[in-house]
Amino acid sequence: MLENTERTELSTLGEFGLIKHLTQFIEIANESTVKGVGDDAAVIDYKGKKTVVSTDMLVEGVHFDLAYMPLKHLGYKAVSVNVSDIYAMNAVPRQITISLAISSRFSVEAVEELYSGMMLACHKYKVDIVGGDTTSSKSGLIISITALGEAEENDLVYRTTAKEGDLLCVTGDLGAAYVGLQLLEREKRIFMESPGVQPDLEGNDYIIERQLKPEARKDIPVLLQKLDVKPTAMIDVSDGLASEILHLCTGSETGCNLYEEKIPIDPAAYNTAREFNLDPTVCALSGGEDYELLFTIDQSDFPKIKANPDITVIGHMTHKKDGVNLISKAGTSVALTAQGWDSLLKK
Amino acid sequence: MLENTERTELSTLGEFGLIKHLTQFIEIANESTVKGVGDDAAVIDYKGKKTVVSTDMLVEGVHFDLAYMPLKHLGYKAVSVNVSDIYAMNAVPRQITISLAISSRFSVEAVEELYSGMMLACHKYKVDIVGGDTTSSKSGLIISITALGEAEENDLVYRTTAKEGDLLCVTGDLGAAYVGLQLLEREKRIFMESPGVQPDLEGNDYIIERQLKPEARKDIPVLLQKLDVKPTAMIDVSDGLASEILHLCTGSETGCNLYEEKIPIDPAAYNTAREFNLDPTVCALSGGEDYELLFTIDQSDFPKIKANPDITVIGHMTHKKDGVNLISKAGTSVALTAQGWDSLLKK
Repeated sequence: MLENTERTELSTLGEFGLIKHLTQFIEIANESTVKGVGDDAAVIDYKGKKTVVSTDMLVEGVHFDLAYMPLKHLGYKAVSVNVSDIYAMNAVPRQITISLAISSRFSVEAVEELYSGMMLACHKYKVDIVGGDTTSSKSGLIISITALGEAEENDLVYRTTAKEGDLLCVTGDLGAAYVGLQLLEREKRIFMESPGVQPDLEGNDYIIERQLKPEARKDIPVLLQKLDVKPTAMIDVSDGLASEILHLCTGSETGCNLYEEKIPIDPAAYNTAREFNLDPTVCALSGGEDYELLFTIDQSDFPKIKANPDITVIGHMTHKKDGVNLISKAGTSVALTAQGWDSLLKK
Repeated sequence: MLENTERTELSTLGEFGLIKHLTQFIEIANESTVKGVGDDAAVIDYKGKKTVVSTDMLVEGVHFDLAYMPLKHLGYKAVSVNVSDIYAMNAVPRQITISLAISSRFSVEAVEELYSGMMLACHKYKVDIVGGDTTSSKSGLIISITALGEAEENDLVYRTTAKEGDLLCVTGDLGAAYVGLQLLEREKRIFMESPGVQPDLEGNDYIIERQLKPEARKDIPVLLQKLDVKPTAMIDVSDGLASEILHLCTGSETGCNLYEEKIPIDPAAYNTAREFNLDPTVCALSGGEDYELLFTIDQSDFPKIKANPDITVIGHMTHKKDGVNLISKAGTSVALTAQGWDSLLKK
């Protein structure tokens, strides 16, 4: 999939050479970055604000398949999924460190592609690359990113502070990233069987992009502040709606009623899911990788968000003893457990 | 090498189960840890001090060989090498995040062993595990740790601020970790050829421990403060003395004269190196993994450190145009480049 035709072996640069080569164009965008790449450690000055830190690891063959994932997109995605966790704390990401383990089947040009995607995302989210580690791997590519951000104590939103009666809201739409993955895997199978066939992804731009180039919801903390709404709890949707709701409920010791008919699903994703004989609701509940924000608000804040096209109320928090339930379109209540959607999948 | 005889498959716990299982005994030791494991991100409050952050990745087959590296030691080492970078900034490590990619050949018990070593080191260095990621790997074990620490701005020591005339000092002794590795690899070869033969590592405890269970110099920033010495520049010795001196000189735009006869080498390491037909000086220059601190001080501070058995003056910084030189025991001057010691190796 690489467009670069040149191939420079990693061994020609060595570890320090590669790091120098990759980091030479880094520009620091944040005042809080006192010292970036180049010393034993980076130095950051949040001037009394809280430091927020999150980390994620992406492993080739587990989290991505380079047969359909261009390296530049992969780099972009690796940064997006990390800063998403910082936004989910209602904090502002400022710095990241990047560790890469790379096998010798990757060329310098390939690593440059990966890095250019990371730098693009850093520019988008205005975060500085302040450190990292680069090493060889016996097989495949492993990316580990740690994102740091800042927040005033009063702005932070945890996943443990939802209360009974709160409205459950989600941004954007859900399930498309998973449907996109199905599309890409189908085209890969077809390509493996008939290498001459061009992939047929037309009309599926949005779905494919949700999988290959997810965006973190940088806009939502800003929007919520503008609307004068502070969520009572918040989490990002990385593992699927069901899993995240269960995290909120377990953390906050509440129950929840989730209404199937309210779950926002993009029409193209809905139709493509159907083509694959997948239940679109199941894709939203368990697909994951949407990187939308799931949050709860006090009922009194409903008027402030109800007109916003980016936010959908999908349920409400209940007493713990009432459990975590999916209310289906037919009006039946199904307990939403980590396996809850397995039964849906089989219907 | 595992002592545990039970084997619980990782799949029986799942990702969240494994994280919960591993993190259940975490105790928070630092006031600055506001929120540890369990949310989208950890929250830290350094109360206006600077945040210092460093990251390292350890890859099976590249950085360690489980044929002779017990998992508990590996866990300990993974934490040590990370906090070492924080001490090298003259800062205090406070928190770490741990990301693991683990193949299915590891059992839950094996991961527990690894984690117990990490927790032991965390206890030793008084750092809190505040987050991480756990994922599967297609092959082998990958550990990525990010260490965070705090420092007052005036206490921070960079590698770019040494000046001409400064004395070059190093803590402890050098080269033993590399000699330890040679010993372990020899015993592995013997074991592979004759599996019945017990490893002969007697009398080499110190050397072996330097390789398997390195300690970060937590005591040195405290000692220097007690001695009222602030280094003009500092770096930790992870890649070997030569490489670190070159980093100091490049960063600080100075030259350096390093005196071979001054380089502190443990007598047992010296003798064992000789047994392997290795030049002990080369082991110190290029062996790496010593995790000692290399620093420069103003000449006027010499009386304060000269009586200290833990600190050895090994050279002095010169003008950039004078280059970076190793003055051999015979009095000849050899340019110390990244390949400088290659010529020594062949002598």
